[in-house]
Amino acid sequence: MSVYAHKNIYELELERNDANHVPLSPLTFLERTASTFPNRIATIHGKRKTTWASTYKRCRQLASALTKHGVGIGDTVSIICPNTPAMFEAHFGVPMTGAVLNTVNIRLDAENIGFMLDHSEAKVVLVDKEFGPVIRKALASLSHPPFVISIDDDLALKGELIGSIEYEDFLAQGDEDFSWEGPEDEWQAISLNYTSGTTGNPKGVVYHHRGAYLNALGNQIVWGMDKHPVYLWTLPMFHCNGWCFPWTITAMAGTHVCLRQVNAKDIFKAIQEHKVAYFCGAPIVLGMLVNEFDAASMKFDHEVEIMTAGAAPPAAIIESMEQMGFQIHHTYGLTETYGPSVICDWQEEWNKEPISERARLKARQGVRYHVLDGLSVRDPKSMEPVPADGETIGEIMMRGNNVMKGYLKNPHATEEAFAQGWFHSGDLAVLHTDGYIEIRDRSKDIIISGGENISSIEIEGVLYRHPAVIEAAVVARPDEKWGETPCAFINLKAEYSHVTKEELISFCREHMAGFKVPKTIVFGELPKTATGKIPKFILRERLKDLD
Amino acid sequence: MSVYAHKNIYELELERNDANHVPLSPLTFLERTASTFPNRIATIHGKRKTTWASTYKRCRQLASALTKHGVGIGDTVSIICPNTPAMFEAHFGVPMTGAVLNTVNIRLDAENIGFMLDHSEAKVVLVDKEFGPVIRKALASLSHPPFVISIDDDLALKGELIGSIEYEDFLAQGDEDFSWEGPEDEWQAISLNYTSGTTGNPKGVVYHHRGAYLNALGNQIVWGMDKHPVYLWTLPMFHCNGWCFPWTITAMAGTHVCLRQVNAKDIFKAIQEHKVAYFCGAPIVLGMLVNEFDAASMKFDHEVEIMTAGAAPPAAIIESMEQMGFQIHHTYGLTETYGPSVICDWQEEWNKEPISERARLKARQGVRYHVLDGLSVRDPKSMEPVPADGETIGEIMMRGNNVMKGYLKNPHATEEAFAQGWFHSGDLAVLHTDGYIEIRDRSKDIIISGGENISSIEIEGVLYRHPAVIEAAVVARPDEKWGETPCAFINLKAEYSHVTKEELISFCREHMAGFKVPKTIVFGELPKTATGKIPKFILRERLKDLD
Repeated sequence: MSVYAHKNIYELELERNDANHVPLSPLTFLERTASTFPNRIATIHGKRKTTWASTYKRCRQLASALTKHGVGIGDTVSIICPNTPAMFEAHFGVPMTGAVLNTVNIRLDAENIGFMLDHSEAKVVLVDKEFGPVIRKALASLSHPPFVISIDDDLALKGELIGSIEYEDFLAQGDEDFSWEGPEDEWQAISLNYTSGTTGNPKGVVYHHRGAYLNALGNQIVWGMDKHPVYLWTLPMFHCNGWCFPWTITAMAGTHVCLRQVNAKDIFKAIQEHKVAYFCGAPIVLGMLVNEFDAASMKFDHEVEIMTAGAAPPAAIIESMEQMGFQIHHTYGLTETYGPSVICDWQEEWNKEPISERARLKARQGVRYHVLDGLSVRDPKSMEPVPADGETIGEIMMRGNNVMKGYLKNPHATEEAFAQGWFHSGDLAVLHTDGYIEIRDRSKDIIISGGENISSIEIEGVLYRHPAVIEAAVVARPDEKWGETPCAFINLKAEYSHVTKEELISFCREHMAGFKVPKTIVFGELPKTATGKIPKFILRERLKDLD
Repeated sequence: MSVYAHKNIYELELERNDANHVPLSPLTFLERTASTFPNRIATIHGKRKTTWASTYKRCRQLASALTKHGVGIGDTVSIICPNTPAMFEAHFGVPMTGAVLNTVNIRLDAENIGFMLDHSEAKVVLVDKEFGPVIRKALASLSHPPFVISIDDDLALKGELIGSIEYEDFLAQGDEDFSWEGPEDEWQAISLNYTSGTTGNPKGVVYHHRGAYLNALGNQIVWGMDKHPVYLWTLPMFHCNGWCFPWTITAMAGTHVCLRQVNAKDIFKAIQEHKVAYFCGAPIVLGMLVNEFDAASMKFDHEVEIMTAGAAPPAAIIESMEQMGFQIHHTYGLTETYGPSVICDWQEEWNKEPISERARLKARQGVRYHVLDGLSVRDPKSMEPVPADGETIGEIMMRGNNVMKGYLKNPHATEEAFAQGWFHSGDLAVLHTDGYIEIRDRSKDIIISGGENISSIEIEGVLYRHPAVIEAAVVARPDEKWGETPCAFINLKAEYSHVTKEELISFCREHMAGFKVPKTIVFGELPKTATGKIPKFILRERLKDLD
């Protein structure tokens, strides 16, 4: 009889040690890429190009200078910066010190930013010149103002350097051979992303090294991305850490093509000039590209793939983009899930379908990333999964290592979000017979009319199919008889300004059940949040003026 | 002042929970693929094809039937089986029960297998019909014989069903909807692979779920593998769990093309018939393909990529394979590192080099996998890294999550292997100026002549460049004057049988320093181990007959 009898032989004298257990961290990707491909181009910013060797040195300089400045584990370093090399470098240089990177939405006002800097107890703030004025205001409200470093970006057109020191001078204080260490525990926080809540104070979503590592690889896997991708930074890096792509593209030894401002001209130029093959963006960015595409001047013969999320891409947009030569991948996620964690994984047999059907299939949110362990649509009360009937509405819930650590200093919200062992997304969806989920609405955006649930997204989807509609948003309008009725806010294309409300209503009547047809239509420009979404709470405010 | 003052705010009320922390396990890939691509082909075996839906059901049946049979956490289930669907299913069905899969090298004799079944305390053994006779002998030696399940594979030509039950009947006892659970801890063992030690008893290398998950993804990343790879099973699945490819190809919803026996005809047939795009194999397999290639009958117009490891592929083989239309990736690893964990990552500028130079560059072992955290060449005494000079020899050491859990019931060997926080590979190498490592020898194969270290691999590399040489192995021959001198065992190609020892020695003299030139040359067939390597200890034995 073995001396190990009655014990689990696989748990004896087989402990973790320094050789066989290393905390997961996306920071290791930079070291690998810099040492294996030192001379390849890491970043392109206007005419400035840096290699991976130089980028790694700069990140270590940043880490070293921050460390000398007293920054370490548990500290917050905030940055307000568009998609420039400095913003990219912060994604490595800051966590190399053990500190947490807090990327601030550059479209926010001083009050909001002030709240975040205060709430996160930011010790250092890096500020791109353009945002000097707004940050000066934000800082004025703080009782413990952080140390401010200005970034004097060559391509910033206007602004003010408000810091105690400029970024390049600060880097010069650091050691380019700084011997950084990864986290001792992969559960250590790596970044902090405030959700642009439409009501109440923003919540600070905390990411850890383990999740960032896994979702960075998850992006590569769902995209089947090969070595050396040339990636254009259309998606703001401040948004869920650019969906983890600063780490993904670095792992793949690709090239980060920076972009201060998103406009069609510069996107097309980068595709031609740098052979950009990948970028990400909300459907609204795709719409812009479609509208400004000029087949005569825009020629490229390489494949360009786009990951879109934030809203289902309308069929017309998918069709136009495909005709222009782009391939669209539709993903879904939340700030709480490190950006995209669900993908409408493509089935080869769908290629045989007509474009309208392909677009309908692609507009669905889909299935889990490989690195997300559970994706489920459930009744939030009973926690029972909904049947896969494409009809029963439930709440999308996730579970996995790319679900946030929690909300910073907000245990109540954290507990609520993680109730009963699942992350509650707040998005309502159905589960189709083929296992793909499709969003019907945000919990708070569902319209309940005469006791029936109406999906505002479903109505918007129909409206988008009308050639006159460039933007549509549907909200619930209080109604004495029905409780609520759908009200559609619509922006018409200039050349279709003659289209009437009656025409749109009758178009809706042809394409949906009668009780879902908007009772009210309002024409005009629609408001946008800092992340390009249409804030429905503002539209609900506007309803009051209708009476 | 915040109530959180003086604490790390990122460690407060942000604990792991069921929603945001799930143990990593490659088993989750099967569930995702089966639910997303249920109707795609998972395995092909002769004329038999199974879908992912059916494969997942069969794996659950296996897990369920094993569970009913009392198999659970900490138990060992061994399998002796060529690359058939049953062998593949065991990679999921066994660990789904919490048990550990022990894949046994099918080329071993009864005594060796008996040792492994006894040492691993195997509770159940699955035996392919062909290996019935040898297992019957192996079992006879055991004091606690395991429960035996026979696999009656249609394509097995001969053999004997020695089990208490046949595999399909055993599956039928299981529930195809069995609700399996992943490991509670990702450190839990998933498999056990005995190293084919050339001396002493084999050591049982234990893998865990975390490492298997990460190396499975690591394979996909270094290969830039897109969805739905068609993969041919030339590499034995019993060897380091097929370098983790059962899990990789499943994650990517690919197709596993099974192969009971490796021969050129069947490989070429599978490439044409099933459009195989990927396979793995030792250079010896490539050599076989080169020798039996018939350009007239072999036509394929898709890209076929091969991962090779186990020895550096000789330049002539690389050149021939490329001309035939194959792309070769050279990787390196050990059983202890889940198979390949180092890759000769290709630099685009090398494409400009002539084939001889490309082959020389490709023959180097290279750089770490993304998922390996540390790769280093060090002096094993001082633990100092060697300079990157391409000359100083040190021992290859690794650290990372794809380094084994340890050796089963062998704490002394485990401790030795992990001394000072690094896994000691036993392979001697240099570090080139570009950061790529290149093996010079196994520690025990280095030749010390007149106080100088001579790499037997370097001499073999030169010998392989001689057109007459089909196989070469160099060992140290004891010598009164020099301590040791190099002795080369050489197998000549049939059409070059006229080549003399003197001719080879003078060829060596032209291509290496005088002290490295073999003093002795022995012609004849070379012995092979069960994994296709040339066992140098047998050659050393033969030296005794030379005197």
